[in-house]
Amino acid sequence: MEALTLSNTQKHRTTVDIYGQQFVIMGTESPSHIRLVASLVDDKMREISSKNPMLDVNKLAVLTAVNAVNDYIKIKDQLERLQAELQKEKDN
Amino acid sequence: MEALTLSNTQKHRTTVDIYGQQFVIMGTESPSHIRLVASLVDDKMREISSKNPMLDVNKLAVLTAVNAVNDYIKIKDQLERLQAELQKEKDN
Repeated sequence: MEALTLSNTQKHRTTVDIYGQQFVIMGTESPSHIRLVASLVDDKMREISSKNPMLDVNKLAVLTAVNAVNDYIKIKDQLERLQAELQKEKDN
Repeated sequence: MEALTLSNTQKHRTTVDIYGQQFVIMGTESPSHIRLVASLVDDKMREISSKNPMLDVNKLAVLTAVNAVNDYIKIKDQLERLQAELQKEKDN
């Protein structure tokens, strides 16, 4: 997908608060979707921070991205297995 | 899943470089998996940075997490639709 980017010059901007910082996020997604994503990132940052209280905010954000990409890869594997299974069902 | 955390006290540590910063990541995943995830995060940070050259590294990391969680939610929706479809195929 096209990457969401920070912008204050394009339409369809959504302002969100993540870990005490304001972000203006632009993308094709609806503002309610962007707010959902932002709140999940905020939750994940707080969860990781509680386990690593000494972490500076920059490392915390990178580690949050690492966790999210890890979750993404796992679910992508699951999706590919399911697609193969569905194909097998259809072939029967 | 259990969150990956930064640690230098637990076994199964993997040292990775993300956007010029070193991270020691611990988790149940294999070092090769962790290195794959780290390289994807590094790629995504560089992609977003190229589109937003004025972004400070902290905002860049948060925005990378936002993108990763966005991708995760989209693929999760896709997985759920496929699971429903597979169930329908099995019921026929």
